[in-house]
Amino acid sequence: MPTATGHTTAIRATRVIGTDVYNANHQKIGEIEDIMLDKSSNNIMFAVISFGGFLGIGEKYHPVPWSILDYEKDAGGYVVGLSKDQLKAAPAHSLSDLAGGDGQRHLSDAFNYYKVPPYWNA
Amino acid sequence: MPTATGHTTAIRATRVIGTDVYNANHQKIGEIEDIMLDKSSNNIMFAVISFGGFLGIGEKYHPVPWSILDYEKDAGGYVVGLSKDQLKAAPAHSLSDLAGGDGQRHLSDAFNYYKVPPYWNA
Repeated sequence: MPTATGHTTAIRATRVIGTDVYNANHQKIGEIEDIMLDKSSNNIMFAVISFGGFLGIGEKYHPVPWSILDYEKDAGGYVVGLSKDQLKAAPAHSLSDLAGGDGQRHLSDAFNYYKVPPYWNA
Repeated sequence: MPTATGHTTAIRATRVIGTDVYNANHQKIGEIEDIMLDKSSNNIMFAVISFGGFLGIGEKYHPVPWSILDYEKDAGGYVVGLSKDQLKAAPAHSLSDLAGGDGQRHLSDAFNYYKVPPYWNA
């Protein structure tokens, strides 16, 4: 949990939600729509990004691991190191589908796709 | 992470924020103001509850461990098993103080006060 400087870095959910998300080329690709939380543990399951406008395929919601979101002050938002093609192929669902049920399948799919080691095996 | 039934239970942050909080006597004591997230790990640090009206001491914000919040459908909100006196003595700060810095001290204080084993030692 501590960073390199020995500090954690706290941020309020309401500050995260609505923040713009950019790709590696500093194109705006969407924004943080919501954050999925696990009621039965202390974990953030994933962030939900709306990528609608950018991909031109209607509003779609992508579950992405919390840890791939890097806030860049200069960009004024989160930057994810993904190309257009990677984003097009990324898991996407309606918001009600993402929030329905236990979220477990969307969780595994997202961590698999973005090649992030699952926190639940740590 | 799995519950007794083998399922996790996903909930969107925007659904949690604004939900009423009741004490063990089913008196409304406040509501979920925000959720503090750790940017450097996958953890929910604590929920922030506003207890202002109930205690009559002006709006104060209490950091409480995520795990002590039990949603009760019949109550229409979260129920925390705490008395008035316990709540009066609970750690409370302004919202800017809670969100400022790294949140580490507020995190330890809250888990100590509510006697919840720290997730960061797990």
